[in-house]
Amino acid sequence: MNPAYDMLKTRFARIATLGEASAMLGWDASAMMPAGGGAARGEQLATLAGLMHDMLIAPETGAALSAAEADGDWGSANLALMRRAHIRATALPTALVEEATIACSACEKTWREARRASDFAAVRPALENVVRLTREQAARLSDALALSPYDALMDGYQRGITAADVTPIFAQYEVFLREALPRVEARQAAAPARIPLAGPFPVETQRRVAQAMSSRMGLEFTHARLDESTHPFCGGTPTDVRITTRYREDDVAQALLGVLHETGHALYERGLPAAWRRQPVGEAAGMGAHESQSLIVEMQACRGDAFLGFLGRELHAAYGGDAAPYSRENLARLWRHVERGFIRVDADEITYPAHVMLRFRLEQALIAGDIQVADLPAAWNQGLHALLGITPPDDERGVLQDIHWYDGAFGYFPSYTLGAMAAAQLMRAARTAVPGLDDALGQGDASPLLGWLRANVHAHGSRLGFQDLLRAATGKPLDPSDFQAHLTARYLD
Amino acid sequence: MNPAYDMLKTRFARIATLGEASAMLGWDASAMMPAGGGAARGEQLATLAGLMHDMLIAPETGAALSAAEADGDWGSANLALMRRAHIRATALPTALVEEATIACSACEKTWREARRASDFAAVRPALENVVRLTREQAARLSDALALSPYDALMDGYQRGITAADVTPIFAQYEVFLREALPRVEARQAAAPARIPLAGPFPVETQRRVAQAMSSRMGLEFTHARLDESTHPFCGGTPTDVRITTRYREDDVAQALLGVLHETGHALYERGLPAAWRRQPVGEAAGMGAHESQSLIVEMQACRGDAFLGFLGRELHAAYGGDAAPYSRENLARLWRHVERGFIRVDADEITYPAHVMLRFRLEQALIAGDIQVADLPAAWNQGLHALLGITPPDDERGVLQDIHWYDGAFGYFPSYTLGAMAAAQLMRAARTAVPGLDDALGQGDASPLLGWLRANVHAHGSRLGFQDLLRAATGKPLDPSDFQAHLTARYLD
Repeated sequence: MNPAYDMLKTRFARIATLGEASAMLGWDASAMMPAGGGAARGEQLATLAGLMHDMLIAPETGAALSAAEADGDWGSANLALMRRAHIRATALPTALVEEATIACSACEKTWREARRASDFAAVRPALENVVRLTREQAARLSDALALSPYDALMDGYQRGITAADVTPIFAQYEVFLREALPRVEARQAAAPARIPLAGPFPVETQRRVAQAMSSRMGLEFTHARLDESTHPFCGGTPTDVRITTRYREDDVAQALLGVLHETGHALYERGLPAAWRRQPVGEAAGMGAHESQSLIVEMQACRGDAFLGFLGRELHAAYGGDAAPYSRENLARLWRHVERGFIRVDADEITYPAHVMLRFRLEQALIAGDIQVADLPAAWNQGLHALLGITPPDDERGVLQDIHWYDGAFGYFPSYTLGAMAAAQLMRAARTAVPGLDDALGQGDASPLLGWLRANVHAHGSRLGFQDLLRAATGKPLDPSDFQAHLTARYLD
Repeated sequence: MNPAYDMLKTRFARIATLGEASAMLGWDASAMMPAGGGAARGEQLATLAGLMHDMLIAPETGAALSAAEADGDWGSANLALMRRAHIRATALPTALVEEATIACSACEKTWREARRASDFAAVRPALENVVRLTREQAARLSDALALSPYDALMDGYQRGITAADVTPIFAQYEVFLREALPRVEARQAAAPARIPLAGPFPVETQRRVAQAMSSRMGLEFTHARLDESTHPFCGGTPTDVRITTRYREDDVAQALLGVLHETGHALYERGLPAAWRRQPVGEAAGMGAHESQSLIVEMQACRGDAFLGFLGRELHAAYGGDAAPYSRENLARLWRHVERGFIRVDADEITYPAHVMLRFRLEQALIAGDIQVADLPAAWNQGLHALLGITPPDDERGVLQDIHWYDGAFGYFPSYTLGAMAAAQLMRAARTAVPGLDDALGQGDASPLLGWLRANVHAHGSRLGFQDLLRAATGKPLDPSDFQAHLTARYLD
């Protein structure tokens, strides 16, 4: 019996319940809402955000945090996460949060136009405003959390890992990349030509196949929906996950692989500990952890040899025509094709980390004040050239391509590569622990993999930080060599 | 400058914004949500309802209401509505509201099963609990509002009209019904046989035609969506209305006429005064007023001779086949067919009020304690027999058919018939004021009607109560003789 802790649990559950309402309204805004509803929706979300913030920073929350004692592992972790949420929220004056929200929303809107016109100058003042407010928030969070300003931002997306952890990992990967990429390219050039899959692929069939494959991976559609939106995402709540994709009649891969990626996110949400629903410790362990779950499904399992064979047969049955393009080998050549490109979201798994490293370095320098917004386009182009030897022909395919900065999400990008590396490390541990995992995938059965993930990742909620989660599941903290071994096996053996 | 009133405006706008969030989540629950999301959704809605209630009953709201002075007509009406909302909310202890919400939600769930099994006994204890809690709420509201308990409930759905207003109106209608119904039936029996419309009617075509007809009535789909749900409804918010229907391949009427009905509701929401958005005075004037708008579109305009001719040509163009069934005369015979039936929602406009009168009388007696839940099935069957001369063969087609009571909505039913009567009265006034209104409808152009409704109904928001709204628009309070004249003209002339 600890009334202060009980009060906190009730309050955080209430905050989380409002967060669920926001999540559903956010999904609706992307997947359903007519354009005319946008202004009112923004106000609805702002009102909910304000209420959640008020509950978090209220004096009685602080008093209860001082008085609370939690029993056991989970309770202690929960209380520590409550304290952290309270510290983060109270570090930021409401006026600053509101100003930043408005600035981000305005900047994001301007960015959409600027990207279309490939006109960085058009969005530069808005982005400067966002960066100014982000620096101010980072400075305040830095004081409150005793982290560097950039680490304080990263901590908001992925607790338990800092720039000092990431930097050597990325440096090691850069060495690998310089050595491996030309070899992969040479090998690819010598391989048989890719046979394109011949469409059209009717959208109704694509939808049916995508949902069937998502079910195969373990998503129960009594607790999920699959819809359409401009940008695929996974939203909703643990008992009502909403994944989206977009369909093109001439391309079967984009929608399907996108659905499988979002399925990984959705399975994580579905597998979170129900006993801790709406408590901080019952949430996902961060964005890096989340990305590890989407990538273990999409990149490790579904683009792996075993599942590709199964998938090829399913696709050929659905779309008919010549069987040869649907062979495992051809699908691998199509869907694991490596190419130095300008666009992060289109990148293969070998070059993807280069896009992330570029952004990680630039955003650190930007937050530290070592570079300014005006320097970004040139620094971007130089940075990409240094990493991949290519230079974007315009800012649309350069510094303007991603929404993140324009929406104020600094410190997020590393999560993608932390997730990719963690996915490889987790897959290796799962294969060791579960014999027959790949044989099952070859039959379209992901349940052995999912069972292992449920027990070793999902069920932990947020009890462990990123590194501790990996330690518990794989016996070691993040080790990029598992990712490199995976890439070597897939692309060079 | 009146700071107390300004504070109230801000607070009521915040409450209304949370109400918008609830409205969207409610729409989603009916139109989109997978079944597994139900429990969490209930908690999300309950949390929002609790927050709105807390804001409304907060001591500073009461203090500001005492101190506020509003300028002008609209401001005064707004302040009066704020005061009324505050009185209603403070009359009910939060614990009672929460208990009732949980009881209604449990009862509604049980009812779904009980109706399927036609087993009133299965839902009886849950309904007794709902009735007990409703009586307690009604008693408290009665004290606070100086209305009878039943009137205090009715006031929550349709301000400005009481059981004492409704009773003589219904009595007068009952006289009309007894005299007119046999004559209509005799006349109908002598008319040419109805030619059924031959399907199948592909759902995609139905959806396209329904949306096109809804647009014809004036709904802009940049601010609206048309989706599917088990029970058609209009949800959402004034800048983002969501109407739903359900499609059957073998029936073109149900979905189409349902969409036109919901379009009337949606047009009312769209036409509310934008300058008073999220203020009490900017809301619709009540459920009777709302129903008048759905019925003036569906029953008065779309099932009227002028529009039916246009609609028949459109439908024939969409579905092809023999033209004869799509003639105006045959559509009128199909879609204005009068028949004594058991089911309210399937009833024609002549017998519909009998279904409402039955429920009005029973729910008054139930709230007054003159009858008990256990008495309902027999009283229902006797009551329907007394009004229409037919007896439901089972409770599924009797007392179990409607969700309202099982969800705690006592005092709602009269709104349907108040709306039907008001629709006839408004249509008569519109026809007098706008020459050529029917000619335009005959061309599929509803803009003259909509223009008149916008100016004379929608634009008033909640500034006027039900009777005053009718006085302003038609020169008299609710007068059932306009409805009877409409029925006589349509069915007996």
